[in-house]
Amino acid sequence: MSIYQVIKKGGVTSAKGFLAAGGHCGIKKSGKKDLALVFSEMPCVLGATYTQSDVKAAPVRVSMAHSRKGKKRAVVFSSGNANACTGVKGIQDAKSMVRETAQGLQVLMNETLVCSTGRIGVPLPIDLITKGIQELVPHISAKGGRDAAEAIMTSDTCMKEYAVSFEIEGKEVIVGGMAKGAGMIHPNMATMLCCVTTDVAIDGRVLQRLTSDAVEQTFNRISVDGDTSTNDTVFVLANGEAGNEKLRKQNEKEVELFYQALCEVMWKLARMIVADGERITKVVELQIKGASSERDAQLHAEAISHSPLVKSSWAGGDPNWGRLMAALGYSNGRVREETVDIYYDGLGAVRNGLATDTPVSQLKRVVAKKSFTITIELHLGKGSYHMLVNDLTEGYVTFNKSE
Amino acid sequence: MSIYQVIKKGGVTSAKGFLAAGGHCGIKKSGKKDLALVFSEMPCVLGATYTQSDVKAAPVRVSMAHSRKGKKRAVVFSSGNANACTGVKGIQDAKSMVRETAQGLQVLMNETLVCSTGRIGVPLPIDLITKGIQELVPHISAKGGRDAAEAIMTSDTCMKEYAVSFEIEGKEVIVGGMAKGAGMIHPNMATMLCCVTTDVAIDGRVLQRLTSDAVEQTFNRISVDGDTSTNDTVFVLANGEAGNEKLRKQNEKEVELFYQALCEVMWKLARMIVADGERITKVVELQIKGASSERDAQLHAEAISHSPLVKSSWAGGDPNWGRLMAALGYSNGRVREETVDIYYDGLGAVRNGLATDTPVSQLKRVVAKKSFTITIELHLGKGSYHMLVNDLTEGYVTFNKSE
Repeated sequence: MSIYQVIKKGGVTSAKGFLAAGGHCGIKKSGKKDLALVFSEMPCVLGATYTQSDVKAAPVRVSMAHSRKGKKRAVVFSSGNANACTGVKGIQDAKSMVRETAQGLQVLMNETLVCSTGRIGVPLPIDLITKGIQELVPHISAKGGRDAAEAIMTSDTCMKEYAVSFEIEGKEVIVGGMAKGAGMIHPNMATMLCCVTTDVAIDGRVLQRLTSDAVEQTFNRISVDGDTSTNDTVFVLANGEAGNEKLRKQNEKEVELFYQALCEVMWKLARMIVADGERITKVVELQIKGASSERDAQLHAEAISHSPLVKSSWAGGDPNWGRLMAALGYSNGRVREETVDIYYDGLGAVRNGLATDTPVSQLKRVVAKKSFTITIELHLGKGSYHMLVNDLTEGYVTFNKSE
Repeated sequence: MSIYQVIKKGGVTSAKGFLAAGGHCGIKKSGKKDLALVFSEMPCVLGATYTQSDVKAAPVRVSMAHSRKGKKRAVVFSSGNANACTGVKGIQDAKSMVRETAQGLQVLMNETLVCSTGRIGVPLPIDLITKGIQELVPHISAKGGRDAAEAIMTSDTCMKEYAVSFEIEGKEVIVGGMAKGAGMIHPNMATMLCCVTTDVAIDGRVLQRLTSDAVEQTFNRISVDGDTSTNDTVFVLANGEAGNEKLRKQNEKEVELFYQALCEVMWKLARMIVADGERITKVVELQIKGASSERDAQLHAEAISHSPLVKSSWAGGDPNWGRLMAALGYSNGRVREETVDIYYDGLGAVRNGLATDTPVSQLKRVVAKKSFTITIELHLGKGSYHMLVNDLTEGYVTFNKSE
C-alpha cells in the first residue's frame, strides 16, 4: 500500500554502492564485535547532526571538523569506549582511527568520519584499534551491513537496521541505515549513533537540511532516561548511484518523497532504540495537544518523559494520572488544571481536570499492555508534540549500577 | 559550642504556647495516624511558601487565600490523600476541614490553615475527616508534637522533628518544627509539608522574608526524584510568647540570630527528608564551585541531581565521573571540559577534564559510604551552589510501581 517497500534484512549496505564490515579488535573484553566500517564506492554528500552537549567526545569533534566541506567516502565506528573526556590523546586517537581507515580504503582523511560509543573517561586502546582496522578493511562487502550493525552495539540487546526502496521518476532509490542506543537516551540528541546510506542523487545542502529536519522529527522525540550523551551522531551519506535527476531545492515533490523515506527509516530505528531501552518493559507514545504553543507542548512532554514517578507507575501497570497532572504542573509549560483531558489509548481518564467515571480496571488493562498511547488535550491553543518514551524498571537501575 | 541548643525530642510544640495532636480518622486503611492539629494559644504572624507548580492542590489554594492577611492560630493536616485535582469538591472539602477545626478550637476560619498530602485525584473522605477533627480537638497538648509529626507521614519511614533554643537579649527563644516527605522531592518546592513554630516576637513582613530566604537555602536545595508536587507547603508560625523586643527590620543582629536558627531547623528537617528518600541507600552533598554565575552552578547541580544514570551509579558504589561530565555537558550551564576538576570527599578524580592518577579503588571507598561529598570546580567564575541528593535504587522503582 505504502509507496515505500520495506527491504527484508535491509540496512546500511542496501543502497547501491555501499559496503561495510564489522569485527572484533579487543575493546570489548567479552570478545563481541567492537569495530565497524561503512564505505561508499562513489563520493557522497553528507547530512550530519551531532550531540548538543557542551562536552563533546573526541570523535564528534574530529567528525565535525571533517564534515564542514568536501565529499565523504568512509565512516569508522568503535564500541565499548566513548573516547570522551580523554583530552589531547583522545583527539590524536580519533585522528589515528581516521588515518588508518583512509589508508586502508585508499581515500582521503577528510573523506573519512569517525564515531565511538561506550564508557566515558577511559583512553582508547588505540594500538588494538588501528591493528583491527587493518584487518577489517579486506572484509568490506555488500553483505557486511549486519556485521557492522552488530559491531556498534553496546548495551543494546538487538541490532537496529532498516531499509526501504521507492521510485523517483522510474529510478529505484534505496534508503537504509543502522543505529545503536539503549541508555543515556534523551533529546537532544539521544546517546545513539546512526548511519543512514542512500543512493539518491541529491544536493549536499538540501541533504543537510532534510537530515536536520528528520532528526528533529524522529531521534529528538525519544527518551529513555533523560540523559544526553557526549557522542550522539547521525550521518546520512548519499552517493547518487540511483541515477535519478539530482534533487535540488526546486523539484519539491521528489524531495518530499525522499524526505518521507528518510523519516520512515529514522523513525523505525528510533522506535527500535526505545523498545530496546535498558531493561524496559513498555513503550509509551505520548501525545500533547491543544497547548498554547509547540514549545509548551514540548515542555509538557519532556517533563512527563523525565519523571521517575510517572515512569515507575507505568512499570507497575498503574494508570496513575495524578502523576501526569503533577508533571504538567511543574513543566514550565502553560496549563489550566480545569481544562485538562487525559486519554489512555483513547479511553478518557480525566475530563476538565477531574477523574471520569471510566472504571480503573479498564484503564489498568491499557497500562498492562507492552505499548500504549497517552493523549493529553490541554484546550489552550494549537500547539502539539509527540514523544516515544519507556518505563523505569528496577532492571534499569541494576544494569546502570554496575555498567 | 553553638549558640543554638538542640532540644531533645523537640518539635512543633517545643516553643511556648503551642499545642498539637495527631490521630487516626480513617483516610489510611492501615489504621495509621492520618490527621494532625497544631494550635497556638496566642495569635501568630505567619511566614509561608507554597509549591510553584501550576497544578496546586485545594488545601494549598485555600491556605494561600487565608494567609494573605491577619494573624493565625491553627493548622489542620491530613495524610493519605492529597486533595489535588479534585475540582470544586476539593475546595469545599478543604474549607470544611478549616471550618471544623476553627469551630473546635474556637478560632476564626481565616485564622486557620490547611495541608493535605497523599495520592492525587481521589476525593477526600470528608465525613471521616470532619468527625476525626471533632474527636481530635480535645487531645491537643504541649506533648502532642510527636503524634502530629507521625500523623503527617505518608511514605516516610521515620518522623521528622527538630527544635533549638537560643537567647535574644536574655530571653529564651525556641524554634522547632516537623516535616514530612520522602518521594516527589525536588525544588521548587519538594513534596513536603513543614510546619515550624516559634515563640519569637517578630514583625509579620520580616518573618515572611526570612521564611522565603530560609526555604531557598534549605528545602529548595534537596532532590530525591526531580518531581515537584502539587501540595508543597511550609508554614512558620511565630506567637511572640518569648517576650523579646519585637524583631523588626532595624535590629539586624537579632534578626540574623533568629534567621540562623530558622535555617538550622529547616536544614535539619530537609536532611531528614533526603535521608528518608524512598528506598534510598546514600545521601550525596553536591557542591558546584567556580561557575560563571550562581544560576549556571544551579543548572549543573540540578542536571546531576536529576540524572538516573548518575544516581544509579551511586547506588552501585561506582565513581563513574564520566556520567557527571556528561550531565555538566547537557545542563545548559556553561562548562569548559578542559578546566573541570572533580573531587570525591576531597580526593581528586578529574583534573583539567581528565582522569587523575588517584586509584579507582580509593574513589570506590568513598562512593561505598552512606554519605559523601562531590565537589566540582569549573574554574570559570565565582558562581556556586550546593544540593543534597540521593541515589536511585531498584527499591525506589518497586515502591513507586505500586504506590
